[in-house]
Amino acid sequence: MSLIVQKFGGTSVADAQRVMNVAKIVTDTFAKGNDVVVVVSAQGDFTDVLEEKAKEINPNASRREKDMLLSAGEQISISLLAMAIEKLGYHAVSLLGWQAGFETSSSHTSARIRKIDPSRIKSALDKKNIVIVAGFQGLSRYGDITTLGRGGSDTSAVAIAAAMHADLCQIYTDVEGVFTADPRKVKGAYKLDEISYDEMLELATLGAQVLNNRSVEMAKKYNIELEVLSSLTRAPGTIVKEKTKMEKMLISGVAKDTDVARISVMGVPNNPGLAFKMFSKLSKKDINVDIILQSIGHDGKKDISFTVAKSRGQEAVDALKDYMDSLGAKEVLYDDNVAKISIVGAGMESHAGVATKMFEALYDAQINIQMISTSEIKVSVLIDARDADKAVEAIHDKFFD
Amino acid sequence: MSLIVQKFGGTSVADAQRVMNVAKIVTDTFAKGNDVVVVVSAQGDFTDVLEEKAKEINPNASRREKDMLLSAGEQISISLLAMAIEKLGYHAVSLLGWQAGFETSSSHTSARIRKIDPSRIKSALDKKNIVIVAGFQGLSRYGDITTLGRGGSDTSAVAIAAAMHADLCQIYTDVEGVFTADPRKVKGAYKLDEISYDEMLELATLGAQVLNNRSVEMAKKYNIELEVLSSLTRAPGTIVKEKTKMEKMLISGVAKDTDVARISVMGVPNNPGLAFKMFSKLSKKDINVDIILQSIGHDGKKDISFTVAKSRGQEAVDALKDYMDSLGAKEVLYDDNVAKISIVGAGMESHAGVATKMFEALYDAQINIQMISTSEIKVSVLIDARDADKAVEAIHDKFFD
Repeated sequence: MSLIVQKFGGTSVADAQRVMNVAKIVTDTFAKGNDVVVVVSAQGDFTDVLEEKAKEINPNASRREKDMLLSAGEQISISLLAMAIEKLGYHAVSLLGWQAGFETSSSHTSARIRKIDPSRIKSALDKKNIVIVAGFQGLSRYGDITTLGRGGSDTSAVAIAAAMHADLCQIYTDVEGVFTADPRKVKGAYKLDEISYDEMLELATLGAQVLNNRSVEMAKKYNIELEVLSSLTRAPGTIVKEKTKMEKMLISGVAKDTDVARISVMGVPNNPGLAFKMFSKLSKKDINVDIILQSIGHDGKKDISFTVAKSRGQEAVDALKDYMDSLGAKEVLYDDNVAKISIVGAGMESHAGVATKMFEALYDAQINIQMISTSEIKVSVLIDARDADKAVEAIHDKFFD
Repeated sequence: MSLIVQKFGGTSVADAQRVMNVAKIVTDTFAKGNDVVVVVSAQGDFTDVLEEKAKEINPNASRREKDMLLSAGEQISISLLAMAIEKLGYHAVSLLGWQAGFETSSSHTSARIRKIDPSRIKSALDKKNIVIVAGFQGLSRYGDITTLGRGGSDTSAVAIAAAMHADLCQIYTDVEGVFTADPRKVKGAYKLDEISYDEMLELATLGAQVLNNRSVEMAKKYNIELEVLSSLTRAPGTIVKEKTKMEKMLISGVAKDTDVARISVMGVPNNPGLAFKMFSKLSKKDINVDIILQSIGHDGKKDISFTVAKSRGQEAVDALKDYMDSLGAKEVLYDDNVAKISIVGAGMESHAGVATKMFEALYDAQINIQMISTSEIKVSVLIDARDADKAVEAIHDKFFD
């Protein structure tokens, strides 16, 4: 007998029929002799509906009240799923975040889980119940309802798996697993059987939003075996764990991120500490900088280019302009018609020439590279947004055909 | 400075504009130097929407899970109202039933309030917050969410008023107060300035559903002054309290109840204990019997007629038929085309002839009386449903013109 945590996202419980489908998956797992703890998100786009209601009344509402509002969404989905499980003849108990023992920080709308007291979950399991826990939410030490931010239900599931030493944490989504590239775009893309935590983290960061990043980090920290799979097909998914047999493969996937903008600051003085001062302007505004490229200085001047999320692009330009003027910089250029294409693979560490192979694929497809960034298990390039899909296909063909 | 509890029903917070309207009423009361605790119901017909969702998945869901589901409705309305109050520049804190200290019995979907620990409400008031409490819900001693049943928000409001020794408990609805008859139906109907608890109780029981009965009983028990008023007109409403200056009036209102059916059991043996045995069949099924009429026996036989709620009528007939057959009863008649018309007034106790005056009004209008029932402050008659509106008008004219 194993303890299995199963997490279902909003689309998996969007209507009555899908809730019944989830109930069948859950009860099948239970009928095989497993203890089952289920974590669910709010139904479909219900969180958006609630946010819209709030915005209509007060766009600047306090974050405490936003959390009170949003956490109602999971309350609805957990009770409906419990009812569906009862309908199939099994015992179910739904628990809100605070009832399930989730104690969080008090930073509303983006709270961190401090600890989980799983005693109530355990006693419900002991009584042969399937336990359904509201994802995304907890309670601060002031007794206020908190939420973990978007994607927080993945984190809730992994946190329960860690606190209860679960044997497996299954994350059900609307895709069948982790693919070598987006299967809707790239013909040869196929599903991976296994992937390591680090590769998964890089892929998540790079725009392949299958799993929430915080949840993968937590799974890595507590060594929780994850499985990403579809709630519709019932086929085996992708296992995420520490060491995988895939490590002999060069790369595990190609990812595309179009939510990116490039900013170039031209002709700044070639002084020590300038980059530090410049980027500290941005970090003060909580703007994350990704790829950074600095030209070799000449005539005491240099150019600095970097990328930020498209949504923060204009803000970043504004934050820099005044400062740059005072430095006598020539100009600040902005371009959000760009895309970041990345390859990820633990195999890179021990294989030379992976980056070269990627650049060759892009050259063959006549795609110009604007910026390059590499890490131990990742290579990213910035290219024109128009070329993004073509680039992913070319690189995928090069590595996987 | 007074402590005022204000309760707003679902229609008062049905949409963003109405939520803002409630926020204005609440903040105006606060700005006059009062401490304000607000109790709200779920928005509009949201409770019905949730019940429909549940029914689609499992019509026989456990009552624990129903409570988990339904209590999400108030969670949404309290946070939206808090946001609206923040928008007007005041501090607000919304509290769920369990956060507000509502401890209830564990009879899900119709829980009773056991006690209220108002310490969290008090400390929030001390910090100059307007406190918004989710009506209708509490927590059992097993840590499960419970609901108080339909109309429970009125009870929540009065219970807080009692626990905190509030100076006034205002129940805002979509009518301007308690009327001598339904103002949409009877021309001369007018709003009462005051009414006693007992009269209010009789009126509520008789189908004039302005206030939930349990809340009036509780207000009477703890001597809480209630005010029934409209959230739309801002005019003074009707005060409900122990002794009123209205007592010199003969009656305080005429009420109509069409949710009633008459059952007649004809030709049963005139034996002692038969009525007891017959009605115990019904009470076992939790069917309430209202007016009872028993004919004087002759030839060792008698007829018994009584009324039940229309929704339970067929069930009551079925429960009796087998038993009656075995007794040799002639037949069981059923009629749900009837209406109960009642007059209520504390003045009756000291004035003779009130019932006679009512019968005279009906005779003048050529309306036949099927059954009569009287109490110290009430006279009810059962008539044909077709005559109901005409009867109310005739009686109202007789007493109030």
